[in-house]
Amino acid sequence: MTTVKIYDTTLRDGAQGEGISFSLQDKLQISKRLDEVGVDYIEGGYPLSNEKDAEFFSQIREAGLQNTKVCAFGMTRRKGVSAAADPGMVALLASQAPVTTIVGKTWDFHVTEVLRVTLEENLAMISDSLALMNSEGREVIYDAEHFFDGWKANADYAVQTLIAAAESGANAIVFCDTNGGTTPREISEIVSQAGDVLRSYNCELGIHCHNDCDLAVANSLFAIEAGCRQVQGTINGIGERCGNADLISILANLGVKNDGYQVLQDLGLESLTELSRFVSEVANMNLRNGQPFVGQSAFAHKGGMHVHAVNRSASSYEHIDPQSVGNERRILVSELSGRSNIQALTKEYGLDHDRELMGKILARVITLESQGYQYEAAEASFDLLVRKCAGLYSPFFQRIKYHVEVASDGSSHGEQMANSDPAGPIAGVEKLVTEATVKLKVQSDICHEVAEGDGPVNALDNALRKGLTDFYPALQEMRLVDYKVRVVNSVAGTAAKIRVNIESADHDEVWRTIGVSENIIEASWLALVDAIDYKLSRNITSGIAVDSP
Amino acid sequence: MTTVKIYDTTLRDGAQGEGISFSLQDKLQISKRLDEVGVDYIEGGYPLSNEKDAEFFSQIREAGLQNTKVCAFGMTRRKGVSAAADPGMVALLASQAPVTTIVGKTWDFHVTEVLRVTLEENLAMISDSLALMNSEGREVIYDAEHFFDGWKANADYAVQTLIAAAESGANAIVFCDTNGGTTPREISEIVSQAGDVLRSYNCELGIHCHNDCDLAVANSLFAIEAGCRQVQGTINGIGERCGNADLISILANLGVKNDGYQVLQDLGLESLTELSRFVSEVANMNLRNGQPFVGQSAFAHKGGMHVHAVNRSASSYEHIDPQSVGNERRILVSELSGRSNIQALTKEYGLDHDRELMGKILARVITLESQGYQYEAAEASFDLLVRKCAGLYSPFFQRIKYHVEVASDGSSHGEQMANSDPAGPIAGVEKLVTEATVKLKVQSDICHEVAEGDGPVNALDNALRKGLTDFYPALQEMRLVDYKVRVVNSVAGTAAKIRVNIESADHDEVWRTIGVSENIIEASWLALVDAIDYKLSRNITSGIAVDSP
Repeated sequence: MTTVKIYDTTLRDGAQGEGISFSLQDKLQISKRLDEVGVDYIEGGYPLSNEKDAEFFSQIREAGLQNTKVCAFGMTRRKGVSAAADPGMVALLASQAPVTTIVGKTWDFHVTEVLRVTLEENLAMISDSLALMNSEGREVIYDAEHFFDGWKANADYAVQTLIAAAESGANAIVFCDTNGGTTPREISEIVSQAGDVLRSYNCELGIHCHNDCDLAVANSLFAIEAGCRQVQGTINGIGERCGNADLISILANLGVKNDGYQVLQDLGLESLTELSRFVSEVANMNLRNGQPFVGQSAFAHKGGMHVHAVNRSASSYEHIDPQSVGNERRILVSELSGRSNIQALTKEYGLDHDRELMGKILARVITLESQGYQYEAAEASFDLLVRKCAGLYSPFFQRIKYHVEVASDGSSHGEQMANSDPAGPIAGVEKLVTEATVKLKVQSDICHEVAEGDGPVNALDNALRKGLTDFYPALQEMRLVDYKVRVVNSVAGTAAKIRVNIESADHDEVWRTIGVSENIIEASWLALVDAIDYKLSRNITSGIAVDSP
Repeated sequence: MTTVKIYDTTLRDGAQGEGISFSLQDKLQISKRLDEVGVDYIEGGYPLSNEKDAEFFSQIREAGLQNTKVCAFGMTRRKGVSAAADPGMVALLASQAPVTTIVGKTWDFHVTEVLRVTLEENLAMISDSLALMNSEGREVIYDAEHFFDGWKANADYAVQTLIAAAESGANAIVFCDTNGGTTPREISEIVSQAGDVLRSYNCELGIHCHNDCDLAVANSLFAIEAGCRQVQGTINGIGERCGNADLISILANLGVKNDGYQVLQDLGLESLTELSRFVSEVANMNLRNGQPFVGQSAFAHKGGMHVHAVNRSASSYEHIDPQSVGNERRILVSELSGRSNIQALTKEYGLDHDRELMGKILARVITLESQGYQYEAAEASFDLLVRKCAGLYSPFFQRIKYHVEVASDGSSHGEQMANSDPAGPIAGVEKLVTEATVKLKVQSDICHEVAEGDGPVNALDNALRKGLTDFYPALQEMRLVDYKVRVVNSVAGTAAKIRVNIESADHDEVWRTIGVSENIIEASWLALVDAIDYKLSRNITSGIAVDSP
């Protein structure tokens, strides 16, 4: 068995993808998930570029990751300064990440025409930067930018850059197809040749591909076949332009299709589907139904003879067992996805032996999924669903009605209108009035409260808490951490179904809930109520009093 | 130059994709477009399967295609009947398509266990079916189903099926990776070996791949390298499960990246982007921004210094010239952007020489980005921002005020509460009242309108249009296509900034706008207003009257 190390750059190169932006919380959550599935390296960010990345490195040190090494990314030192004085190097060291990944120029054209330094100075920039990191005790990964284009343009110089890196203590040298234009044959040949050059050094070889020719997965596999033992990519292939190599597909090809390779420290192959969907949700991206291995259609079979044949011999119509990547066969129109999740999750309650209950939960999930619910990123709502199906839930309060109102206060600015600002839109130039009322039955009381907020959901949340906190003081510990909205069926514009995901936290847990409705306010209400119900249900399960004394 | 023939099965295998359905008109339209770009073969459908396919073959004969041959698809004759008496064969002949594509079994397991005939009878089914088509003067393409799995299971029998086809007059034999599980190496080896077997026959070899391992494009290219001269696939890779090989990527790899091949009769490479978007639109699918070669992000550049370098030498950051596939470079405005991004964007307006204006736009973008705006997915809002900074914009209407209200109608269900449902949340169990009013100054009039909607944004949109359409009838052409919401600084939960992106379309353009506010309603308002302003501004620029006559 050959071990291939997985280097995930979802949080850095993936975040360069159009429309992708991760909050600090998103980055921490994704890191924890990648750690759980046994990813070897996580590239956390570029500490020089912004505050958020610097803060990430500080917080991730406290997260207690078990399997993953965190890498900080930066460029070689600037021209004409010492490595120790370079702001990028300083930021890398300040991040305290145990691994630093330094990207340097391979292509002579880029050295002289883009960077505008001499070929010799570029070699010194590589050597100095790596030597500094090495002397500070960091594991050093060297990303050879534009490696294949550089090699094709001037192989002699490309070799010099590799040797500069190897001699300055690079623990790994990664061949980057930065522009994504190289073919599998070229990858195969050039990696073999470069491997020969580096044979006498104690450097691991790596590969980093982009998908501009729709070949990133093939290219990565050919590089591994040619000797690379580290592969860089992103979950779901997110990234700039056409994206990076999709680690999901690479992992399934290496770990499931091919028995010669060991990946993910033998931990995570059966979590690939869940991981893919989790990252899609956090990145607020639509799932790709046809995504290889993990898409909802990847093992979908249509009716008639085909299904009959599938039942007779699954392997005659499926290239792998869907469960090997945590996916499910789907037959007919019904959404049978999630059965193993359901089984796994009900196990926690000791309920997985109850076949009738399992059937009830499954039927419920199928109904709700058809309405736009998705439980991969809403475990707390799923927990409540199980409790409800098992008869383990009684409501903490009942809604009688609510009312939400947003009005621009035309009088405050008279005829001076928001969209007449000659220099463009400025949010909040005009005072908005946002108010929510809720009427609830709590225990045997009726409470009727009103509150304002920064927006309708905030106002609704404020009114709900105002009504409930007297009865359930534990709610004071709870806060909303994140709020996400997606249009589920996006063809009909604003009239489509709206899916709201809310993330809540107290001092020792973070939990996520979901609500779906045509109306964003109602969807938010459902997710807010689940968040509160989960908090109170969990406290009861843990024997913590939730009622007011 | 080696000529590779392109066989498009978008209308047959592509239509098997989940959620895809083509009307007869759609099929005719797509066929004409494929003919224009020089596709060699179009698989029009399966005449036995339904009326629509049969009607297609009748109508396409009248369409006067210039470059393309139309193929009818069917299976080998059933067991125990003569080919001439088989309903499938009769339907193929009745279609009058000049080419018939017959699919037959290669894999012994499928012959005996799924089809339940003897291995000999399967060979006779292949021979009889092809011989009939041949004797009726049809060009015959033989699709060897499950070819690679069959070869791996029993190469001797697989060879017998190929020879049966070749000896019965197949003009081409196509190797199908039906389950999509074969690797490029295997494709390469098996195609070479099968090619040797068929060397003495006058058969063209073809390849038909599926994308279950994310390798369909690589597999197709390796098969061509190993001797295939026909490649089957679909536009945008649509198709069952993970889809077929994407002809767009294959064509760009063969025709643009590699100078050894001639494809599309030298007609259509520069139409690939348009073709891809056309088929997406007809199939009512979302464009994949990251689609290799033709996606909107495929040549998008982000990040200050990077853009600086692209301006200096495009080829240093692009693997091909975007125009070679009919695509274009896009410069994104983003957090990391600097002056060079703005400069590239204002070039389109001929304003890039105005340094004072450039400074004003940059300052404005920086201010708005700090509030949570992001223009990379909102070109229409950026366009308006430039117009506003350049003094080229005057408002079409002014807002005096608006009011939005959402209320659950407690009375309709009395004490039966949404969250008391023992089996979990069901959206929409209770009737919601959603209403918006807007008061606008339009030209010299004041209009005050009220409308309902499925949610608050839909209601606001309805009220706005109700107020404006009398003044600007062009707004009737416009519709909302997508609506996205993100929390920008998600640490503060629902009190954080909300970013709304709206995608709108009319008959010939799709445009995207953005709004940011603490309040989701206000953010939606800003994005809606930009969408309307952009539509009207663009019509004016194009010299189209926007006012009511």
